[in-house]
Amino acid sequence: MQRYFIANEQLINNTITLHSDDAHHVKNVMRFRIGDNLVCINENEQTFKCEILELNSDKVIVRIVEELKEDRELPVNVTIAQGMPKGEKLELVLQKGTELGLRSYVPLKTKRTIVKFDDKKEKKKIERWEKIVKEAAEQSYRSRIPTIESPINLKELVSFSSQYTFKLVAYEETAKGSEEKSNLKYVLDNIKTGDSILVVFGPEGGLDEDEVLFLENNGFITCALGPRILRTETAPLYLLSAVSYQLELLR
Amino acid sequence: MQRYFIANEQLINNTITLHSDDAHHVKNVMRFRIGDNLVCINENEQTFKCEILELNSDKVIVRIVEELKEDRELPVNVTIAQGMPKGEKLELVLQKGTELGLRSYVPLKTKRTIVKFDDKKEKKKIERWEKIVKEAAEQSYRSRIPTIESPINLKELVSFSSQYTFKLVAYEETAKGSEEKSNLKYVLDNIKTGDSILVVFGPEGGLDEDEVLFLENNGFITCALGPRILRTETAPLYLLSAVSYQLELLR
Repeated sequence: MQRYFIANEQLINNTITLHSDDAHHVKNVMRFRIGDNLVCINENEQTFKCEILELNSDKVIVRIVEELKEDRELPVNVTIAQGMPKGEKLELVLQKGTELGLRSYVPLKTKRTIVKFDDKKEKKKIERWEKIVKEAAEQSYRSRIPTIESPINLKELVSFSSQYTFKLVAYEETAKGSEEKSNLKYVLDNIKTGDSILVVFGPEGGLDEDEVLFLENNGFITCALGPRILRTETAPLYLLSAVSYQLELLR
Repeated sequence: MQRYFIANEQLINNTITLHSDDAHHVKNVMRFRIGDNLVCINENEQTFKCEILELNSDKVIVRIVEELKEDRELPVNVTIAQGMPKGEKLELVLQKGTELGLRSYVPLKTKRTIVKFDDKKEKKKIERWEKIVKEAAEQSYRSRIPTIESPINLKELVSFSSQYTFKLVAYEETAKGSEEKSNLKYVLDNIKTGDSILVVFGPEGGLDEDEVLFLENNGFITCALGPRILRTETAPLYLLSAVSYQLELLR
């Protein structure tokens, strides 16, 4: 059933009012009619099956039929912090990452990050990214839209990371060692429902050794993601899939 | 180190001759010079560290320095059969799937497959797809290029599937049940090195119920890939990541 994320204030008594993009989507994309059903999710992740009452020129009014008890969210908070790759790669990570359960995304300014943008462009880009994750969250039947942070550097990431239970850095060089082979396994064996994990990925050119060392000195553990070399946009998808497999299918 | 796949006949005595695209890549993209090192992999998956001897206008001649003992291939054969999605999605699955260890890809003609092409177009498309998997195999340091089959229908897939140890169909409807939750876990717990697994995915619109029933009646087991709804191009990447995680990191 088609899903729409709403602000809590859109819900008054037992009805919900959809505006602008969502109202347009209901009327012109889905071509719904009065009496049709759709799903609305509020900011508390409450999921409601609704029935369309009114289709107006500027808004759509729906009535709550019942609250659905769904749980499609990963049991842990997975945050991806990534040396900003080029536009379409970053957007791929956001879209696919959202489908795979991403909770939060942190664009990183690293030594080999090529992408540069000023404050004005940054605002526009983040708006675009927020649209991508919202649509992907709706499409994948999630009850939560991932959050996107403003770009920060590694030093700022270290302060940001203090709130996380586990802190990892995916570093391809460690694929050669045997010790790190199971660091991801170690973390996923020990992570508990409600815990959080922050995983750092390099940009296209990777992190440099000093950057990895800096992260290690600040409590991050290096981890390999199998023996093949993954592109920067593929590695976060492997990580999220592994988390889902271990916590949602194995347990 | 930059990698090139070669035909066995390119290796004579202790030297390898690179032609056309690869020679161009060595000279004009990588701008290598005499004495520089690169890696060549033959059809037997033997991986050689080589040194450049000659850079000619139409070919590059290298000398084998040593055979490298690498093992970056998944320990099992994972074949993805997928209701053909639109061009760029299929290409994404091929590129990312190759990085994640895909052994073989089978484009399927299903009821909801929108993509149609005639024999002439088919040949061109397959050539393009083969270029994508070759480049992705080189980039991800694999020793094997995935194979791509010609498009077939579900009936033909059933004959094709007889050579596989395990046959699965990813079907989102079963995400609701509890029984299928662990079918993937069951298979990956029981699969042994050298075994093969064929996994079927629907196109954008999914497989229809009759198609799933037909596959089930022919020995395929339905399996869910977590509680979220994954797009057709995301689901195979989840599957390959889970296989790698279970067989390369957990074991």
